[in-house]
Amino acid sequence: MASIFSKIIAGEIPCYKVAEDENFFAFLDINPVMPGHTLVVPKHEVDYIFDLEEDEYAGLAKFARRVARCMKQVIDCKKVAVVVLGLEVPHAHIHLIPITKEGDVNFGQKKTLSADEMTAIAKKIADEYDLTKGE
Amino acid sequence: MASIFSKIIAGEIPCYKVAEDENFFAFLDINPVMPGHTLVVPKHEVDYIFDLEEDEYAGLAKFARRVARCMKQVIDCKKVAVVVLGLEVPHAHIHLIPITKEGDVNFGQKKTLSADEMTAIAKKIADEYDLTKGE
Repeated sequence: MASIFSKIIAGEIPCYKVAEDENFFAFLDINPVMPGHTLVVPKHEVDYIFDLEEDEYAGLAKFARRVARCMKQVIDCKKVAVVVLGLEVPHAHIHLIPITKEGDVNFGQKKTLSADEMTAIAKKIADEYDLTKGE
Repeated sequence: MASIFSKIIAGEIPCYKVAEDENFFAFLDINPVMPGHTLVVPKHEVDYIFDLEEDEYAGLAKFARRVARCMKQVIDCKKVAVVVLGLEVPHAHIHLIPITKEGDVNFGQKKTLSADEMTAIAKKIADEYDLTKGE
Protein backbone atom coordinates (compact mmCIF):
# COMPACT_ATOMS: atom_id res chain seq x y z
CA MET A 1 0.00 0.00 0.00
CA ALA A 2 1.29 3.46 -0.86
CA SER A 3 2.53 5.52 2.09
CA ILE A 4 0.77 8.76 3.02
CA PHE A 5 3.72 10.60 1.46
CA SER A 6 3.37 8.69 -1.81
CA LYS A 7 -0.32 9.68 -1.84
CA ILE A 8 0.67 13.33 -1.26
CA ILE A 9 3.24 13.15 -4.09
CA ALA A 10 0.60 11.59 -6.37
CA GLY A 11 -1.83 14.41 -5.52
CA GLU A 12 -4.33 12.04 -3.88
CA ILE A 13 -3.95 13.89 -0.58
CA PRO A 14 -3.61 17.71 -0.68
CA CYS A 15 -0.48 19.43 0.64
CA TYR A 16 1.24 22.80 0.80
CA LYS A 17 3.87 22.02 -1.82
CA VAL A 18 7.21 23.77 -1.61
CA ALA A 19 9.43 22.17 -4.26
CA GLU A 20 9.67 19.19 -6.60
CA ASP A 21 12.08 17.72 -9.09
CA GLU A 22 12.24 14.42 -10.93
CA ASN A 23 13.17 12.38 -7.86
CA PHE A 24 12.32 14.40 -4.77
CA PHE A 25 9.41 16.35 -3.25
CA ALA A 26 9.08 18.95 -0.46
CA PHE A 27 5.96 20.19 1.34
CA LEU A 28 5.00 21.83 4.63
CA ASP A 29 4.53 19.57 7.67
CA ILE A 30 0.82 19.81 8.49
CA ASN A 31 1.75 19.81 12.22
CA PRO A 32 4.68 22.26 12.22
CA VAL A 33 6.91 22.61 15.27
CA MET A 34 7.90 26.02 13.82
CA PRO A 35 6.33 28.05 10.98
CA GLY A 36 7.87 26.88 7.70
CA HIS A 37 8.64 23.36 8.99
CA THR A 38 9.10 21.39 5.77
CA LEU A 39 9.32 17.68 4.92
CA VAL A 40 11.63 16.50 2.15
CA VAL A 41 11.06 13.01 0.73
CA PRO A 42 12.34 10.82 -2.08
CA LYS A 43 9.62 9.83 -4.54
CA HIS A 44 11.09 6.34 -4.38
CA GLU A 45 9.34 4.86 -1.34
CA VAL A 46 11.98 3.55 1.06
CA ASP A 47 11.44 3.13 4.81
CA TYR A 48 14.93 3.77 6.17
CA ILE A 49 16.82 6.74 4.75
CA PHE A 50 20.22 5.03 4.90
CA ASP A 51 18.88 2.15 2.80
CA LEU A 52 18.82 4.57 -0.16
CA GLU A 53 21.67 3.88 -2.58
CA GLU A 54 24.63 6.21 -2.15
CA ASP A 55 23.89 8.31 -5.25
CA GLU A 56 20.19 8.59 -4.49
CA TYR A 57 21.00 9.61 -0.93
CA ALA A 58 23.44 12.25 -2.19
CA GLY A 59 20.74 13.53 -4.57
CA LEU A 60 18.26 13.79 -1.71
CA ALA A 61 20.85 15.64 0.39
CA LYS A 62 21.51 18.16 -2.41
CA PHE A 63 17.77 18.73 -2.92
CA ALA A 64 17.26 19.23 0.84
CA ARG A 65 20.19 21.68 0.92
CA ARG A 66 18.63 23.73 -1.86
CA VAL A 67 15.22 23.81 -0.16
CA ALA A 68 16.82 24.71 3.20
CA ARG A 69 18.77 27.58 1.63
CA CYS A 70 15.54 28.93 0.13
CA MET A 71 13.77 28.63 3.49
CA LYS A 72 16.49 30.67 5.19
CA GLN A 73 16.15 33.38 2.54
CA VAL A 74 12.45 33.93 3.19
CA ILE A 75 11.87 32.91 6.83
CA ASP A 76 13.15 34.89 9.81
CA CYS A 77 15.48 32.39 11.56
CA LYS A 78 19.11 31.83 12.49
CA LYS A 79 19.50 28.44 10.81
CA VAL A 80 17.50 25.63 9.31
CA ALA A 81 17.78 22.50 11.47
CA VAL A 82 17.71 18.96 10.09
CA VAL A 83 16.01 16.03 11.81
CA VAL A 84 15.49 12.49 10.55
CA LEU A 85 13.82 10.07 12.96
CA GLY A 86 11.75 7.76 10.82
CA LEU A 87 9.94 5.60 13.35
CA GLU A 88 6.40 6.71 12.43
CA VAL A 89 5.74 6.94 8.68
CA PRO A 90 7.63 4.13 6.84
CA HIS A 91 8.72 6.46 4.01
CA ALA A 92 12.06 8.20 4.57
CA HIS A 93 11.68 11.95 5.24
CA ILE A 94 13.86 14.82 6.34
CA HIS A 95 12.42 17.50 8.64
CA LEU A 96 13.76 20.98 7.84
CA ILE A 97 12.92 23.33 10.71
CA PRO A 98 13.69 27.07 10.84
CA ILE A 99 15.21 27.78 14.27
CA THR A 100 16.52 30.66 16.32
CA LYS A 101 17.25 28.68 19.49
CA GLU A 102 17.79 24.95 20.14
CA GLY A 103 14.48 24.62 22.01
CA ASP A 104 12.69 25.44 18.74
CA VAL A 105 13.09 21.77 17.77
CA ASN A 106 10.50 20.26 20.07
CA PHE A 107 8.20 17.68 18.54
CA GLY A 108 5.95 17.84 21.60
CA GLN A 109 5.12 21.48 20.88
CA LYS A 110 3.24 21.85 17.59
CA LYS A 111 2.19 25.25 16.24
CA THR A 112 -1.26 25.95 14.84
CA LEU A 113 -1.21 27.97 11.62
CA SER A 114 -4.21 28.94 9.50
CA ALA A 115 -4.58 27.62 5.95
CA ASP A 116 -3.84 31.14 4.71
CA GLU A 117 -0.61 31.29 6.71
CA MET A 118 0.47 27.85 5.47
CA THR A 119 -0.32 28.82 1.86
CA ALA A 120 1.64 32.08 2.19
CA ILE A 121 4.74 30.38 3.66
CA ALA A 122 4.70 27.58 1.07
CA LYS A 123 4.42 30.16 -1.72
CA LYS A 124 7.34 32.22 -0.40
CA ILE A 125 9.63 29.17 -0.30
CA ALA A 126 8.37 27.86 -3.65
CA ASP A 127 8.94 31.26 -5.33
CA GLU A 128 12.49 31.36 -3.94
CA TYR A 129 13.07 27.79 -5.13
CA ASP A 130 11.94 28.72 -8.65
CA LEU A 131 14.45 31.60 -8.64
CA THR A 132 17.31 29.14 -7.95
CA LYS A 133 16.45 26.85 -10.87
CA GLY A 134 19.31 26.39 -13.28
CA GLU A 135 21.90 27.37 -10.66
CA MET B 1 40.62 30.64 16.51
CA ALA B 2 40.20 26.96 15.70
CA SER B 3 36.90 25.42 16.83
CA ILE B 4 36.90 22.64 19.42
CA PHE B 5 36.18 20.23 16.56
CA SER B 6 39.18 21.47 14.55
CA LYS B 7 41.31 20.86 17.66
CA ILE B 8 39.89 17.34 17.94
CA ILE B 9 40.62 16.67 14.25
CA ALA B 10 44.17 18.01 14.72
CA GLY B 11 44.67 15.68 17.70
CA GLU B 12 45.11 18.57 20.15
CA ILE B 13 42.07 17.39 22.11
CA PRO B 14 41.56 13.61 22.55
CA CYS B 15 38.48 11.88 21.19
CA TYR B 16 36.96 8.46 20.60
CA LYS B 17 37.55 8.42 16.85
CA VAL B 18 35.19 6.40 14.68
CA ALA B 19 36.12 7.20 11.07
CA GLU B 20 38.12 9.61 8.94
CA ASP B 21 38.79 10.31 5.30
CA GLU B 22 40.48 13.14 3.43
CA ASN B 23 37.69 15.64 4.05
CA PHE B 24 35.56 14.38 6.92
CA PHE B 25 35.91 13.08 10.49
CA ALA B 26 33.63 11.15 12.88
CA PHE B 27 33.97 10.63 16.64
CA LEU B 28 31.77 9.78 19.63
CA ASP B 29 29.88 12.64 21.30
CA ILE B 30 31.42 12.94 24.77
CA ASN B 31 27.90 13.60 26.16
CA PRO B 32 25.91 10.94 24.34
CA VAL B 33 22.11 10.97 24.40
CA MET B 34 22.32 7.26 23.47
CA PRO B 35 25.30 4.86 23.48
CA GLY B 36 27.08 5.18 20.14
CA HIS B 37 25.97 8.81 19.57
CA THR B 38 28.44 10.02 16.94
CA LEU B 39 29.35 13.45 15.54
CA VAL B 40 30.28 13.80 11.87
CA VAL B 41 32.10 16.97 10.80
CA PRO B 42 33.77 18.41 7.73
CA LYS B 43 37.47 19.16 8.28
CA HIS B 44 36.79 22.43 6.50
CA GLU B 45 35.59 24.67 9.33
CA VAL B 46 32.25 26.17 8.34
CA ASP B 47 29.65 27.38 10.86
CA TYR B 48 26.40 26.68 9.01
CA ILE B 49 26.09 23.30 7.30
CA PHE B 50 24.09 24.67 4.34
CA ASP B 51 26.87 27.18 3.61
CA LEU B 52 28.99 24.22 2.45
CA GLU B 53 29.28 24.14 -1.35
CA GLU B 54 26.93 21.64 -2.98
CA ASP B 55 29.61 19.04 -3.76
CA GLU B 56 31.20 19.29 -0.32
CA TYR B 57 27.79 18.94 1.29
CA ALA B 58 27.06 15.87 -0.84
CA GLY B 59 30.43 14.41 0.19
CA LEU B 60 29.62 14.99 3.85
CA ALA B 61 26.22 13.35 3.38
CA LYS B 62 27.79 10.26 1.77
CA PHE B 63 30.39 9.98 4.55
CA ALA B 64 27.66 10.31 7.21
CA ARG B 65 25.58 7.64 5.44
CA ARG B 66 28.51 5.23 5.47
CA VAL B 67 29.21 5.85 9.19
CA ALA B 68 25.49 5.49 10.02
CA ARG B 69 25.28 2.17 8.16
CA CYS B 70 28.30 0.89 10.11
CA MET B 71 26.71 2.04 13.40
CA LYS B 72 23.52 0.11 12.63
CA GLN B 73 25.56 -3.03 11.93
CA VAL B 74 27.21 -3.06 15.34
CA ILE B 75 24.77 -1.27 17.70
CA ASP B 76 21.43 -2.74 18.79
CA CYS B 77 18.92 -0.18 17.44
CA LYS B 78 16.03 0.19 14.98
CA LYS B 79 17.46 3.11 13.03
CA VAL B 80 20.15 5.75 13.18
CA ALA B 81 18.58 9.20 13.58
CA VAL B 82 20.08 12.38 12.13
CA VAL B 83 20.03 15.75 13.87
CA VAL B 84 21.70 19.00 12.84
CA LEU B 85 21.04 22.01 15.07
CA GLY B 86 24.23 24.05 15.00
CA LEU B 87 23.52 26.85 17.46
CA GLU B 88 26.26 25.95 19.96
CA VAL B 89 29.61 25.03 18.37
CA PRO B 90 30.21 27.20 15.25
CA HIS B 91 31.56 24.25 13.23
CA ALA B 92 28.93 22.33 11.25
CA HIS B 93 28.26 18.86 12.69
CA ILE B 94 25.79 16.05 12.19
CA HIS B 95 24.56 14.05 15.19
CA LEU B 96 24.03 10.37 14.36
CA ILE B 97 22.03 8.74 17.15
CA PRO B 98 21.08 5.04 17.38
CA ILE B 99 17.39 4.89 18.29
CA THR B 100 14.68 2.37 19.01
CA LYS B 101 11.92 4.86 19.85
CA GLU B 102 11.46 8.57 19.04
CA GLY B 103 12.00 9.60 22.68
CA ASP B 104 15.59 8.33 22.38
CA VAL B 105 16.49 11.66 20.77
CA ASN B 106 16.37 13.85 23.86
CA PHE B 107 19.23 16.30 24.27
CA GLY B 108 18.12 16.98 27.84
CA GLN B 109 18.84 13.37 28.80
CA LYS B 110 22.55 12.55 28.49
CA LYS B 111 23.91 9.08 29.23
CA THR B 112 27.01 8.46 31.30
CA LEU B 113 29.33 5.83 29.82
CA SER B 114 32.72 4.78 31.16
CA ALA B 115 35.90 5.38 29.15
CA ASP B 116 36.08 1.62 28.56
CA GLU B 117 32.54 1.55 27.19
CA MET B 118 33.21 4.54 24.92
CA THR B 119 36.45 2.95 23.66
CA ALA B 120 34.70 -0.35 22.96
CA ILE B 121 31.83 1.28 21.01
CA ALA B 122 34.19 3.50 18.98
CA LYS B 123 36.31 0.44 18.11
CA LYS B 124 33.30 -1.59 16.97
CA ILE B 125 32.15 1.16 14.61
CA ALA B 126 35.70 1.89 13.41
CA ASP B 127 36.34 -1.80 12.67
CA GLU B 128 33.11 -2.00 10.68
CA TYR B 129 34.05 1.20 8.82
CA ASP B 130 37.42 -0.31 7.87
CA LEU B 131 35.60 -3.37 6.47
CA THR B 132 33.58 -1.15 4.11
CA LYS B 133 36.65 0.57 2.63
CA GLY B 134 36.87 0.25 -1.11
CA GLU B 135 33.14 -0.44 -1.46
